[in-house]
Amino acid sequence: MRSRGAQVVVVQGLGFVGAAVAAAVSHASDGAGQPLYYVIGVDLPTPQGEWKVSQINDGKTPIVSADASLETLLHEGVHVRGNLSATVDVEVYGLADVIVVDIPLDVKDRFAFAPEAIAIDVEAFTQAIRVIGQRMRDDALVLVETTVPVGTCEGIILPILEAERKQRGLAQPVCLAHAPERVMPGPNYVRSIRQHRRTFSGVDAVAAQRAAAFLASVIDTKTYPLYQLENPSSSELAKLMENSYRAVNIAWIHEWTLLAEHMGIDLFQVIDSIRVRVGTHDNIKSPGFGVGGYCLTKDSLLAQWALHRASNGSMALGMTLDALRINADMPIHTFALLAELLQQRLAERTILVCGVSYLAEVGDTRNSPTELLYDTLVRHGARVIVHDPYVRQWEQRPQVEVAQDLAACLRGDVHGIVWAVPHHGYRAVHPAAMVDALTQPPAIVDAQNILSDETAGFLVEAGCLVAGVGKGHWRRRGYHTRHA
Amino acid sequence: MRSRGAQVVVVQGLGFVGAAVAAAVSHASDGAGQPLYYVIGVDLPTPQGEWKVSQINDGKTPIVSADASLETLLHEGVHVRGNLSATVDVEVYGLADVIVVDIPLDVKDRFAFAPEAIAIDVEAFTQAIRVIGQRMRDDALVLVETTVPVGTCEGIILPILEAERKQRGLAQPVCLAHAPERVMPGPNYVRSIRQHRRTFSGVDAVAAQRAAAFLASVIDTKTYPLYQLENPSSSELAKLMENSYRAVNIAWIHEWTLLAEHMGIDLFQVIDSIRVRVGTHDNIKSPGFGVGGYCLTKDSLLAQWALHRASNGSMALGMTLDALRINADMPIHTFALLAELLQQRLAERTILVCGVSYLAEVGDTRNSPTELLYDTLVRHGARVIVHDPYVRQWEQRPQVEVAQDLAACLRGDVHGIVWAVPHHGYRAVHPAAMVDALTQPPAIVDAQNILSDETAGFLVEAGCLVAGVGKGHWRRRGYHTRHA
Repeated sequence: MRSRGAQVVVVQGLGFVGAAVAAAVSHASDGAGQPLYYVIGVDLPTPQGEWKVSQINDGKTPIVSADASLETLLHEGVHVRGNLSATVDVEVYGLADVIVVDIPLDVKDRFAFAPEAIAIDVEAFTQAIRVIGQRMRDDALVLVETTVPVGTCEGIILPILEAERKQRGLAQPVCLAHAPERVMPGPNYVRSIRQHRRTFSGVDAVAAQRAAAFLASVIDTKTYPLYQLENPSSSELAKLMENSYRAVNIAWIHEWTLLAEHMGIDLFQVIDSIRVRVGTHDNIKSPGFGVGGYCLTKDSLLAQWALHRASNGSMALGMTLDALRINADMPIHTFALLAELLQQRLAERTILVCGVSYLAEVGDTRNSPTELLYDTLVRHGARVIVHDPYVRQWEQRPQVEVAQDLAACLRGDVHGIVWAVPHHGYRAVHPAAMVDALTQPPAIVDAQNILSDETAGFLVEAGCLVAGVGKGHWRRRGYHTRHA
Repeated sequence: MRSRGAQVVVVQGLGFVGAAVAAAVSHASDGAGQPLYYVIGVDLPTPQGEWKVSQINDGKTPIVSADASLETLLHEGVHVRGNLSATVDVEVYGLADVIVVDIPLDVKDRFAFAPEAIAIDVEAFTQAIRVIGQRMRDDALVLVETTVPVGTCEGIILPILEAERKQRGLAQPVCLAHAPERVMPGPNYVRSIRQHRRTFSGVDAVAAQRAAAFLASVIDTKTYPLYQLENPSSSELAKLMENSYRAVNIAWIHEWTLLAEHMGIDLFQVIDSIRVRVGTHDNIKSPGFGVGGYCLTKDSLLAQWALHRASNGSMALGMTLDALRINADMPIHTFALLAELLQQRLAERTILVCGVSYLAEVGDTRNSPTELLYDTLVRHGARVIVHDPYVRQWEQRPQVEVAQDLAACLRGDVHGIVWAVPHHGYRAVHPAAMVDALTQPPAIVDAQNILSDETAGFLVEAGCLVAGVGKGHWRRRGYHTRHA
């Protein structure tokens, strides 16, 4: 490849981001359609890492995704274009013109919200950086895409690379840049890499320039121009803030959700009326079940961790931390609605929870709010059935079998149903058929605006009790109690 | 007028909303350009009320506004179309086909944030409603545009009207509707009434229908369709939430502003990079000086007041109240920046505060954050000069003279300057001329992103110390301390 002019790009980390980035970079072409890069994905020599490597080398995706183009690109890279492979051998860093860092940097406990309690898994991260410093070429560009605390690139990564390179006698300034990923799981997975506005920065002008050139070769920057920030602290902060913004606004809606339910108001309708104010209010969030995933539950904590250290413990993002607390507890509200409908008698009741992933049409279960609902139901003695068409294996609750056949779940003796994730299939359930197949009319909690008012009314007429997050008007109409 | 087919519309309250509504309604015409309504504005028989009435009867505006069309419409209504007048005589309610309620409903103390401490000036409001009930025609439409706590229309206004009407032997159901105003002060004042999406509701279908017909005769509803909500509680909540949304997001930015300043980051640049995510992040707020005005400092408190009563004190909008607290204290941060530059020596120093109103290009000083800055500076012994081209008389600090001549303020012995409001004129100040006219280079705090990096750099070269809200990079570059 190199003899044909292609540069070597090594992608460190083959998780949700790195696998898709490797696929996208392998697809970058020159004007004549020839590959611009030879791409090597690297993961750790763990069983999971080895499996990902072998999947990619087979041209298959290591990630369950609704976006078929991921597998297409991986297949093409390995079998058609011949410019994509994966390995656990760290020596390949020495071949790289560009090293893209897509490894995770996580907090140790996502439920530790006190500023002094927030801790970060920094050891695995710094070790991975050290491995790069021990092998990288003097002139290689290191492009960090990982979301990191403010100050990490210049305060942690750069010193490690400098120290390792100094030991090796390398003399050039480290070419280090930061361009936080904005990958969105779901049907537009690969598109979210190639057609998405990206923010970047370099430790100096050369690094910034080389990062811009590399990103422009992979991303459609004519339509989605790059945004250069002054320094890595700025791009680190930009990423943390944009996710914190979402997390805080979800928490804020939740406290008004409780108001609306208490006062008998349909909050979905109210919010819809506010959203007509385009440009100022159209992104206001909806009531819902909870917040999960890798980013929104963590990124604010990374910011607080950095601020705590930078201020010697004197400064805290108070509202932001409160918001994460609210979000973490959100599923308890759905539990409370169900318990209310069942008059607090959960022991020995069979409860069907529909949805395990943290997002519609996605199989990602990381920090899924269903965890807390499941655990709480079990603690109250309920028999819990969980269903999710996108989740075969619930990584965080490996002992729990995730049902795949919804019709089979909606048969017989089910006392309660929670619609926890708005997967398309759940909206398609026919209410009459559902009630007919069950031994008795169940208590139903719609945590995701899945049931229309008409369907909810029908279910109540059929003897069900029905509650919904944000559905104050259902309470006002007696749907919580009508046949009590 | 009525003989020519025009209906009579009485507008109750001739403040910032009512005066503009009266003007807009008087301008509504049929297809032939004939006035649809004869409009009578009513205010209280106080000196201020009498003055407003006489201004309108002279065809003049009772409000200082950057929007010249307000005065044009009032002049036309009184002197050309002859369908607009004003009075303090409450008997005119008996003439009305439509009564539009635009009186204020305020909290007693905007700094009382504890749920049990929030109190509302409900007496004046209910008395005004009672006056309507004692005189209104049986079939008149009462359209409330005031922002009110959730439940006010059905729980407070409707019972008063019903009781008064019952005493008078009126038999029809009360035709009561709610359509919260979305008037924006500034250059698009009148436009914000006629070309703005409006939300409304009625206590029953007839009231909703009549409200819709009336609003459609005044508003360009083809381009800005009305949004009907299920009941007045919903439209009451919609208005409170849309303003709370803004207040909370301003507070959230402020806590990240402190982070950015501490960590040496230009938050304006970071936010600009986030705003490129159109549809999800483009309305993220900017760092600033504080939150003032009539709405954002109050509306969340109205919601909390209603929730407190509805839940017997058991529920609170915790994040929302925290946000109002943060917003109320925001000007103290600007004070702290100035005090830092002056090494805490404020006694006997002359400080020029540029901007008294709460918004750019507006003369409205209600709850202006400049109040807190002014009071704090005075408490620390500073001699404070305040300037605002839009404010002749500072209603909330009547003893303070508001300077109108900026050049005269920027002469001689000024030790500190705060840019507190981003009026256009402040951006036009020439930095070299400013420094030349002053006895010594002053300490300058830019609380509103008025100074460019280049201007700030120039001022520092000229011997000034310069700080800015959200301008962490100025601190990193030594602009806070360079000549210390």
